[in-house]
Amino acid sequence: MSQILKNDRFLRALRREPVDRTPVWIMRQAGRYLPEYRRVRAQAGDFLSLCSNPDLACEVTLQPIDRFGLDAAILFSDILTLPNAMGLELAFETGEGPKFANPIRDLKAVQQLSVPDPEQAIGYVMDAVRLIVRELDGRVPLIGFAGSPWTVGTYVVEGGSSKTFSHIKAMMYSEPAVLHKLLDTLAKATVEYLAAQIEAGASAVMVFDTWGGVLTPATYREFSLRYMQNITHALAERYPATPVILFTKNGGAWLEDMAATGCAGLGLDWTTDLSDARARVGDKVALQGNLDPSVLYSPPEVIRREVGKVLESFGHGEGHVFNLGHGVTPDVNPEHVGALVEAVRELSPAYHKAG
Amino acid sequence: MSQILKNDRFLRALRREPVDRTPVWIMRQAGRYLPEYRRVRAQAGDFLSLCSNPDLACEVTLQPIDRFGLDAAILFSDILTLPNAMGLELAFETGEGPKFANPIRDLKAVQQLSVPDPEQAIGYVMDAVRLIVRELDGRVPLIGFAGSPWTVGTYVVEGGSSKTFSHIKAMMYSEPAVLHKLLDTLAKATVEYLAAQIEAGASAVMVFDTWGGVLTPATYREFSLRYMQNITHALAERYPATPVILFTKNGGAWLEDMAATGCAGLGLDWTTDLSDARARVGDKVALQGNLDPSVLYSPPEVIRREVGKVLESFGHGEGHVFNLGHGVTPDVNPEHVGALVEAVRELSPAYHKAG
Repeated sequence: MSQILKNDRFLRALRREPVDRTPVWIMRQAGRYLPEYRRVRAQAGDFLSLCSNPDLACEVTLQPIDRFGLDAAILFSDILTLPNAMGLELAFETGEGPKFANPIRDLKAVQQLSVPDPEQAIGYVMDAVRLIVRELDGRVPLIGFAGSPWTVGTYVVEGGSSKTFSHIKAMMYSEPAVLHKLLDTLAKATVEYLAAQIEAGASAVMVFDTWGGVLTPATYREFSLRYMQNITHALAERYPATPVILFTKNGGAWLEDMAATGCAGLGLDWTTDLSDARARVGDKVALQGNLDPSVLYSPPEVIRREVGKVLESFGHGEGHVFNLGHGVTPDVNPEHVGALVEAVRELSPAYHKAG
Repeated sequence: MSQILKNDRFLRALRREPVDRTPVWIMRQAGRYLPEYRRVRAQAGDFLSLCSNPDLACEVTLQPIDRFGLDAAILFSDILTLPNAMGLELAFETGEGPKFANPIRDLKAVQQLSVPDPEQAIGYVMDAVRLIVRELDGRVPLIGFAGSPWTVGTYVVEGGSSKTFSHIKAMMYSEPAVLHKLLDTLAKATVEYLAAQIEAGASAVMVFDTWGGVLTPATYREFSLRYMQNITHALAERYPATPVILFTKNGGAWLEDMAATGCAGLGLDWTTDLSDARARVGDKVALQGNLDPSVLYSPPEVIRREVGKVLESFGHGEGHVFNLGHGVTPDVNPEHVGALVEAVRELSPAYHKAG
């Protein structure tokens, strides 16, 4: 599936190679803040129907590329399509978020899970990847993704979103072997899933650990990071040229441990300064981030100033991918996202020798 | 109001003086997980009626002291009683959390706020403090508290709870002078409020910065920490012997800055190891925390093991107040809280020379 890319800034930055300016893409860049997304979403019906329709998933993936000229596309999908394909029936109830009718609470339920063949169980995702890569026609690379085993685990054990994570934490503290078995199965399924996305044409993959930050340092290493490392290692063996980005929200304390997994890049939320992060791990990995998404509620001149601060914080040299520290929120004005992209384009060449 | 305390372990630990065992109290120790609390709450009617009734507030404050023999009591109240007393009408809607009917969104609204005389505007709190101190009769010290200006600010600007903090962050990035004026007024009101609690008999005060962790390092220092420091300094001038504890949830990255405010102790959530925190700031402040509250969903033997890990993490010597890393959740079995207290009592003497 490999093609000559017309714009490979994103991949070069992940390898910490020279670029003319800092590449930029935005978490949740295909989403509800875009009127063209909302039109397609209404056409699709519910959220899962949109995810499972390759034509529509392709269309919304490309919308922000067409509108803003970003340096990478990211597959439009959801981290819970994988457990859904593993037989855990997922539903999105309006205003309630994701729900699993039969949450996993014991060893028997864990043992009933098996690692699916992605093309068979969830082929619509790979169909979307193939279609997007064809439609991109080498303009920019496509990023594939999955949730971290811990993060996906929180949803399948709790049965949905949670504030206290009481069920999975009770399992973690009282029956760690059961949770390890679940996370191991999820990690193996995730390896196959990301491998299938790479085979279908994804140029890089990102693992979203949205909820790793609710753990203690010791339980983060044992129950979240370990399984992300398993994924990183398994993919590195099969696809040594494909960069893996790890992102643990509220994981700023653990960057050294994350960088030691052998991943190519770390996603950073806005609670850690890029300058500090770079001093800690910048000789090992690229850094992706980390503008506070709330800056997008401000007028363009404030956005430009804050973009400048993020670029200045990373400083001169290579290995920076500009992004928000978390996904763009649905109530943001798309023109403000445009102002962000324009500011990166205008202000970042000064930080690169080739710029 | 000062009395000879029969048990001053908590205050000694905050001064990093020798104790026979690690003192223990628990955030939200008076709360819904206790059947005796639920009875009083039902009697009071709504939550604000409970807060504003000194007899009932006293009763629920003492319940966990009577049941568990904790080493400190904490005033039963809410961080939003102060803005409520400043004329911002507060309501707790069932299942919806706190609501302010007229959120503060512009300079005019900020200018209409003034610093109230606590005894006049919110005297029921000081009445409760006086009653509790009398009823405690020197058994253990009473902790007074308030929310941090930033955290209280999030509620009064958003109009209630928030996930994205879009209004206050828009104000912060676009109209920082307006937000500074609001935070300055809130800080001054908080100084008077905490001073009144100390005058009424509180032996220590704690500032809860529940939402400081949603800021960037730079905005945390400018919009949250600065105002907590103003409070700490003002109180130190008037009450040099009264310890102030600062707690920023998800503030583990900023402990050095927090310790430099001159506070006596730092509350820690469970995402930072006590051993690391002690190495970073343990020569300046006492540390309070930091068991993951979710451990209380586990059986007593697991709770005991995890309490042991927290004690071991702090290690030998003085300056540790045992606590959870956040409040006890409503669905916890009270006997599990008992198991925590018993474990601290039994396991901690080994870490103290006087033990």
